[in-house]
Amino acid sequence: MATVKKIISAQNSLIKKVLLLKDKSRERRKTGLFVLEGKRELELAQKGDYILDTLLYCPELLSDFPIQDYLNQGHIQLAEVPKTVYEKLAYRGSTEGVMALVKAKEHHLDQIAFNNPNPLILIAEAPEKPGNIGALLRTADAAALDAVLIANPRTDLYNPNIIRSSVGCVFTNQIGMGTTTEIIEFLQKHNIKMYCAALTASKTYTSCDYKEATAIVVGTESIGLTPTWLEQSHQNIIIPMEGEIDSMNVSVSAAILIFEAKRQRGN
Amino acid sequence: MATVKKIISAQNSLIKKVLLLKDKSRERRKTGLFVLEGKRELELAQKGDYILDTLLYCPELLSDFPIQDYLNQGHIQLAEVPKTVYEKLAYRGSTEGVMALVKAKEHHLDQIAFNNPNPLILIAEAPEKPGNIGALLRTADAAALDAVLIANPRTDLYNPNIIRSSVGCVFTNQIGMGTTTEIIEFLQKHNIKMYCAALTASKTYTSCDYKEATAIVVGTESIGLTPTWLEQSHQNIIIPMEGEIDSMNVSVSAAILIFEAKRQRGN
Repeated sequence: MATVKKIISAQNSLIKKVLLLKDKSRERRKTGLFVLEGKRELELAQKGDYILDTLLYCPELLSDFPIQDYLNQGHIQLAEVPKTVYEKLAYRGSTEGVMALVKAKEHHLDQIAFNNPNPLILIAEAPEKPGNIGALLRTADAAALDAVLIANPRTDLYNPNIIRSSVGCVFTNQIGMGTTTEIIEFLQKHNIKMYCAALTASKTYTSCDYKEATAIVVGTESIGLTPTWLEQSHQNIIIPMEGEIDSMNVSVSAAILIFEAKRQRGN
Repeated sequence: MATVKKIISAQNSLIKKVLLLKDKSRERRKTGLFVLEGKRELELAQKGDYILDTLLYCPELLSDFPIQDYLNQGHIQLAEVPKTVYEKLAYRGSTEGVMALVKAKEHHLDQIAFNNPNPLILIAEAPEKPGNIGALLRTADAAALDAVLIANPRTDLYNPNIIRSSVGCVFTNQIGMGTTTEIIEFLQKHNIKMYCAALTASKTYTSCDYKEATAIVVGTESIGLTPTWLEQSHQNIIIPMEGEIDSMNVSVSAAILIFEAKRQRGN
């Protein structure tokens, strides 16, 4: 049975470590750990088979939480912190009184496995804004996509803003990362057809058939997909836009495409 | 021909007024003015028949801009500001060297007019986050919706974060505001059917016909639509979700519903 460390001071080395892991992606890469906040996020991370390293909790803030369950898991360090210290660590000073240091996954492409013979996956090339990545992951979870692949990632997946804006769906999706070349090879190996969203495409997205193994591919809002994708694509597709502006938010575009595929597959 | 006022000091009363209008919705309501930044936003506001009150520009930052055209419009005040002052006013110190004080519109429901005999409109009840409102307006523009109605508004439409996140689509959409009761009366008067998104609905959104006059109605992420909507609705609808979480971002949900209606209407 684990013992609980009681921390009183914000100068404690664990507290400093948490702050560093929240702030610095370099520190996350170095240690292989990241910080998660909130009960629901913790629950989703455990459902996603993430391994907890340390659980920090604040009894004054935490309610309805089975701390006993964690005491019985020997490999998890437990630390109890007072409200004054917890509020220094937590996003907007709250998050329900529980956070954890969690082991990051590797997200190698060769770990991606499909149960579905005709998988439906989302690929995002070089997404940057945490809010957009979070929204993509949230939509991917809702659609129960078979995987989300990130090509040429530019932002650490365990950035606290991604965890928060994904409402924990960074833990529930099967996520792979690689270069554009590696991902295209992966798709070819698995016979998955690429449908690449492009403002230059002439084929309307609703006129394609997404019932076979399908990858919906989206680029960044600023430059779209790189030529490699558009050239190797099975079909480049466009969402017709009739207003004054010529682009939509990337997470909105992706959702429209994904749910059209879902509709064709009978939801 | 207007003369150009040259402002040197950040203590100038116009500069103070701009800062106040950016910060305070109360000040915007009092004066009927709001602040717009950037060339594209300015262009879209003019396309949307907004009336400019004052144009501020910074010659050191501004390029490719027909300032001469504005000099010839007698009713617009022009003010030239140095870079040091402009950077104090602008979002992240940039926005291309041009901003304007613009007259707000009233957004009365009785000013809403439809060219389309079977309009497709979006209704959002009590949206709060500027980023969500901006995203909804951006999608509405892309879909060329006939109107966007906001029921029981809680956030000033001319909040700088709404203007920014809508990428100027706050100016390109026909927007009406009113209480839930007023909007439902408006819909009944115009024979527009309400399709209300609700997690409690059993009817899948893809099984409805949106080709007649249609209002897609969405609530807030936290509480959804209030009972009045769900009771008066023509049909309550749901986007089937199969993942671990049970909700999507409101702007994502709205986009999926709107583009399904567009698909049925032949885009």
